[in-house]
Amino acid sequence: MTVLPPSQKALVPFVSVGNMMRFIHHVGIERMLIDLADYIEADFRRWPQFDKTPRVASHSEIGVIELMPTSDGVSYGFKYVNGHPGNTKSGLQTVTAFGLLANVETGYPVLLTEMTVLTAMRTAAMSALAAKYLAPKGAHTMAMIGNGAQSEFQSLAMKAVVGLKSVRLYDIDRAASEKAAKNLRGHGLNVTICDSAEDSMEGAQIITTCTADKQYATILSDNMVGPGVHINAIGGDCPGKTELAPAILHRSDIFVEYPEQTRIEGEIQQLGPDHPVTELWQVIEGTAPGRRHADQITLFDSVGFAIEDFSALRYVRDHVRETGCFEDVDLLADPDDPRDLFGMLQRAAP
Amino acid sequence: MTVLPPSQKALVPFVSVGNMMRFIHHVGIERMLIDLADYIEADFRRWPQFDKTPRVASHSEIGVIELMPTSDGVSYGFKYVNGHPGNTKSGLQTVTAFGLLANVETGYPVLLTEMTVLTAMRTAAMSALAAKYLAPKGAHTMAMIGNGAQSEFQSLAMKAVVGLKSVRLYDIDRAASEKAAKNLRGHGLNVTICDSAEDSMEGAQIITTCTADKQYATILSDNMVGPGVHINAIGGDCPGKTELAPAILHRSDIFVEYPEQTRIEGEIQQLGPDHPVTELWQVIEGTAPGRRHADQITLFDSVGFAIEDFSALRYVRDHVRETGCFEDVDLLADPDDPRDLFGMLQRAAP
Repeated sequence: MTVLPPSQKALVPFVSVGNMMRFIHHVGIERMLIDLADYIEADFRRWPQFDKTPRVASHSEIGVIELMPTSDGVSYGFKYVNGHPGNTKSGLQTVTAFGLLANVETGYPVLLTEMTVLTAMRTAAMSALAAKYLAPKGAHTMAMIGNGAQSEFQSLAMKAVVGLKSVRLYDIDRAASEKAAKNLRGHGLNVTICDSAEDSMEGAQIITTCTADKQYATILSDNMVGPGVHINAIGGDCPGKTELAPAILHRSDIFVEYPEQTRIEGEIQQLGPDHPVTELWQVIEGTAPGRRHADQITLFDSVGFAIEDFSALRYVRDHVRETGCFEDVDLLADPDDPRDLFGMLQRAAP
Repeated sequence: MTVLPPSQKALVPFVSVGNMMRFIHHVGIERMLIDLADYIEADFRRWPQFDKTPRVASHSEIGVIELMPTSDGVSYGFKYVNGHPGNTKSGLQTVTAFGLLANVETGYPVLLTEMTVLTAMRTAAMSALAAKYLAPKGAHTMAMIGNGAQSEFQSLAMKAVVGLKSVRLYDIDRAASEKAAKNLRGHGLNVTICDSAEDSMEGAQIITTCTADKQYATILSDNMVGPGVHINAIGGDCPGKTELAPAILHRSDIFVEYPEQTRIEGEIQQLGPDHPVTELWQVIEGTAPGRRHADQITLFDSVGFAIEDFSALRYVRDHVRETGCFEDVDLLADPDDPRDLFGMLQRAAP
């Protein structure tokens, strides 16, 4: 075999799940959640620079596979992500993802990375960033309803970015709450397992809902939500999947990532197409008001948007090299003469 | 029947450029071109089963990055591909690509592979498949105009699938023709380098145009094309990029992959939106006529469609395992308890 090793041009840094976890520990979980929130904040500030399209979804009866591309004109990123609620029955993840960042000038990929773990991190960072702008000042307690794979990330991001002190966990499956409580031990949060959603909201200024059923559910009913809270609604994120009673939406000021997508996928799919919402980037940029008074209910109707993945990809690209938590993969063909792809193939003959 | 250990869930077979080249040599170039044509033919026969959408393109001033997804309801595939004609100036490829095949039932990827080399193979297989249905019976000589990275693949696919005996090469850059002639040596074709496009067409029953300039070009003018030939037009494949004089189109019966995409990207962007074309899959399926008489000019206005990549991905998935030309990469997070992503991360702490 006379195959020469691939040239540098052929190589793309690849971050496996194992390396992503090493990278996160290298940086520190809370430090990275803060950094990711900063990267997302910076990208939301320059929102108009981005190509924005609703995700490209391929639906089947039991799930969805989506591609989420975006570009700022310098870099291009996309994420592949599936959503299959039935997967857990066979020991598989509901959501898995990977992503890629490329150079717009050449079209060459510059980073390929797992994004299952990274998406959990960026989703939590996004929630915390929204809460930084929308939650009541001095918010210290969060009700965390739905204690699946996102719940610990949400809790730590709220601690790191907003200064959360206490989390009150509730899940219809108590084992999930126990898992979350165990995982959060030693991270500096007061953690309480609660017997009902109502109970979890006692004394909470932030209410996070993050349940997984693909159906119109009512995790929060109208009478459960008092004035002055910030609701961080994560789980209503595809058509037919919502968590909040419509009456709550009517009492709230609603903030969204990208209205064109949120009206299809978010809680506001339950409202008319003209129901007023505020784009979060405008709050961050300073051109739209966030929280205006103490009694106001603010609702971040989060569905996850491509720009957040782009921010996370940028962060990994900027910082993974110095940690060594990656490997180079031979993803790109790089013949000596670009027109001589066949010659390269031929020279690789045994 | 092999029972996979649980950790297998985290792993996805990855075919690097190096492994793709080993795989091709393991199968044999011509054998694989025939096999790919068979896979594409089988998928074209069941065309209505596929989700079809035009590619999702992100254009910049100097190039384009595209995602090309499709699904047959059982598998889902997509290709990432860029097109940057200026890249060759800095020693980079105009086109690089990679792709992924996933299981629709779970959303889990089952194959990640380079597709720069694989696309060259499938594009040539597609051309040869079209020629099998459209070229005059007994076609033995091809004019190959544009001797870049595709030209040798085109020549060998026409030999393997259609029985081509002779190739007449022409390129405005003679060094490109010399490169192609050198590469084709020993592959059982009579190869002639020609001084002009006209010269290359002498005695040819098949004319393949495959040039790279992103502009309205006239590689073939009307008076150059006599009756009875099959034109395989590869290079006219994006808005503003065509190779044939409109008069040739008016004299030809035009066959396309997916009209919605070809009317934007192919030679027929020069024609009215209602100009009649035949979808090649219907010819293959037997519900539309292909070549009807010896004097007819048939034109395959090829732009490349996602289903062809899907066929190629299927082929690699079906055959790469037995050759060992892959490595497993840790692309998917696989916690013991799917809800316990955070626990998995925590247990990975140093």
